[in-house]
Amino acid sequence: MSGNAGERPRLTAVQYGVGPIGSRIVRVAVDRGIEFVGGIDIDPTKVGRDLGRVVGLERDLGVDVTDDAQTALEAEPDVVFHSTGSSLAAVSPQLTDALTAEADVISTTEELSYPWWDPDNRGLASELDETAREHGVTCLGTGINPGFAMDTLPAVLSTPCQVVQSIRVERVQDAAQRRRPLQEKIGAGLDVETFEREIATAGGHVGLSESTAMLADALGWTLQTTERDIEPVIADERVRSDYVTVDPGAVAGIRQRVRGIVDGDAVIELDLRMYLDAPDPHDRIRITGRPPLDVVVAGGFHGDRTTPAIVVNVVPRVRAAAPGVATMLDLAVPSYTRAL
Amino acid sequence: MSGNAGERPRLTAVQYGVGPIGSRIVRVAVDRGIEFVGGIDIDPTKVGRDLGRVVGLERDLGVDVTDDAQTALEAEPDVVFHSTGSSLAAVSPQLTDALTAEADVISTTEELSYPWWDPDNRGLASELDETAREHGVTCLGTGINPGFAMDTLPAVLSTPCQVVQSIRVERVQDAAQRRRPLQEKIGAGLDVETFEREIATAGGHVGLSESTAMLADALGWTLQTTERDIEPVIADERVRSDYVTVDPGAVAGIRQRVRGIVDGDAVIELDLRMYLDAPDPHDRIRITGRPPLDVVVAGGFHGDRTTPAIVVNVVPRVRAAAPGVATMLDLAVPSYTRAL
Ligand SMILES: NC(=O)c1ccc[n+]([C@@H]2O[C@H](COP(=O)([O-])OP(=O)(O)OC[C@H]3O[C@@H](n4cnc5c(N)ncnc54)[C@H](OP(=O)(O)O)[C@@H]3O)[C@@H](O)[C@H]2O)c1
Ligand SMILES: NC(=O)c1ccc[n+]([C@@H]2O[C@H](COP(=O)([O-])OP(=O)(O)OC[C@H]3O[C@@H](n4cnc5c(N)ncnc54)[C@H](OP(=O)(O)O)[C@@H]3O)[C@@H](O)[C@H]2O)c1
Repeated sequence: MSGNAGERPRLTAVQYGVGPIGSRIVRVAVDRGIEFVGGIDIDPTKVGRDLGRVVGLERDLGVDVTDDAQTALEAEPDVVFHSTGSSLAAVSPQLTDALTAEADVISTTEELSYPWWDPDNRGLASELDETAREHGVTCLGTGINPGFAMDTLPAVLSTPCQVVQSIRVERVQDAAQRRRPLQEKIGAGLDVETFEREIATAGGHVGLSESTAMLADALGWTLQTTERDIEPVIADERVRSDYVTVDPGAVAGIRQRVRGIVDGDAVIELDLRMYLDAPDPHDRIRITGRPPLDVVVAGGFHGDRTTPAIVVNVVPRVRAAAPGVATMLDLAVPSYTRAL
Repeated sequence: MSGNAGERPRLTAVQYGVGPIGSRIVRVAVDRGIEFVGGIDIDPTKVGRDLGRVVGLERDLGVDVTDDAQTALEAEPDVVFHSTGSSLAAVSPQLTDALTAEADVISTTEELSYPWWDPDNRGLASELDETAREHGVTCLGTGINPGFAMDTLPAVLSTPCQVVQSIRVERVQDAAQRRRPLQEKIGAGLDVETFEREIATAGGHVGLSESTAMLADALGWTLQTTERDIEPVIADERVRSDYVTVDPGAVAGIRQRVRGIVDGDAVIELDLRMYLDAPDPHDRIRITGRPPLDVVVAGGFHGDRTTPAIVVNVVPRVRAAAPGVATMLDLAVPSYTRAL
């Protein structure tokens, strides 16, 4: 239990996608004693440089970032941490390569958190599931949202309820504290028209529907339909972050809701607000039931700090899980764990 | 998923111990479609009466409470819900009988929630583990506390942390809302001297040490020692519940703390206050770490309503678990679930 490196071989990993999230995953994992045997990214400014330097460590990790995934995976890592994109269709060849290399895969791909929901993804999920089983490894999609704040945690919090009538989860994030790609994704700085055309049409933040479906599945509800809406949050006054300045009347960010409907009632409502300078950021989970429940996470879970932690903390749970595509609710109860 | 009774056989259960908690378990389980094929209790006022009536339902369940455990277990239930006492030594023959009858066992015995902690219980735990494995069934100790509020939930909440330095859990319960045996256990109505002699010496509420050890194990900490203290909470003014009246200067209840120590630091601190008319009842979990976390459950988890819910909600997780003695952290992520 002391994590003495001499006692057992260190766990080896490859980082697939070394953007802001991938870089943080590497830093957290290195801190916990995981050994990186490869780093994969297509960004030419990263390729050929030491992984440690690319992720912002002040030392070499002794392995260069490469754009040749196959070669990197020949190092036979125990685990591949994957963070290249949100769309399952786009990333599934990458996941397949990693699984075929007999690595357990933990990915921040939002659509992978519950890939059985979206009819367009079910076929891909089945193929990944088959590949994973064939190679005796597990493939999990996780992160703070989807993956924890609006699905796993509300599910766990429902355990002490005799009856659950409905669950409402509200997540308010001050996007000024978040990484650049997120600020772009929520449309910060756009005018309303561009927001409607580029952000709203594309569906906004990916994952709310997956969280809704995952929660419904856990609770044993068959949703008849899900309703979604996306609206811009407009700045009253000038707000700025490290990456963008928003004038009054322009878009400061997004408010997005998904409701899961049974018999005409919204039994699940997820309400996500991410915008620059959002006051009173928090996560709040309310259950209408017996007994009812009202839980508040003061300040909220910070998306960019918590996602890498979750990815690394679930390593032992994923390694112990049955082969195939897993969701967070298939794992044994997760926690921070010093001993990986 | 619709829980249509025609689709698959209903899950069968025996209730072992039909006190206030056992009665609530039966009511919650019946509500969720579980079929009771037996009820066991030694209280002569219950023996020979229909289980439904004994637990306060307004209808018969078609099975009488008996004090003959062996005969009741011959009904071959899928699950035995067990709630006769707190001490593992006292209840382990009962658990053994249930396991030998090839039933999965879910018990509210506090010492069973993490039986590996107490050196006096480890031998019993090993024997139960062996019996359970031999019969291919699982044996779990759970409830709100120990079992959820001060161990499972804090563990889950640590998942988004990159680093955890310490965890502090505070649980304040208004004992006036709780069942009679609990009010007795916390010494409500006693004078201070009697409290010290009868309650403090006996160790007070059972389970804080188990929760501490369970949490430490999850987080990968090897505790050097645990420190415990118990003190009475003295009434300033007259307070009363349905069962007891407390005069000023007498004991309104208990404050009990356990600290788990690593390198001289209290990395875990559990602080439980249960007394009549406690103001602002709540559960609060604070993690010192990166990021830190502060989570409040408004009003707190009600002990007597939530324990039966947890017992029933974990049924599918226990049935899917590996044979042997399990703790909550060995199960797949629990939740309320309509489909049992
Ligand atoms: N579930 C959650 O809670 C959660 C939380 C945070 C993030 N996420 C998701 O995790 C993903 C990563 O986040 P991020 O902010 O780091 O995104 P990002 O800035 O887009 O970084 C992705 C990195 O992967 C690289 N990449 C893209 N396609 C690749 C390929 N085929 N092979 C190798 N590398 C490739 C990118 O290179 P280029 O820059 O050259 O394209 C970039 O360096 C995003 O999809 C994000 O939405 C999920
Ligand atoms: N983990 C948790 O969070 C949690 C929460 C709530 C309760 N609990 C524990 O769960 C247990 C049950 O709670 P409770 O309030 O219902 O306690 P209780 O009032 O003591 O009820 C226990 C019942 O079991 C009967 N019983 C005792 N020994 C028996 C035996 N050998 N065979 C058959 N029946 C027997 C008792 O009969 P007599 O009255 O005749 O003795 C009584 O009817 C307690 O130990 C309590 O501390 C744990």
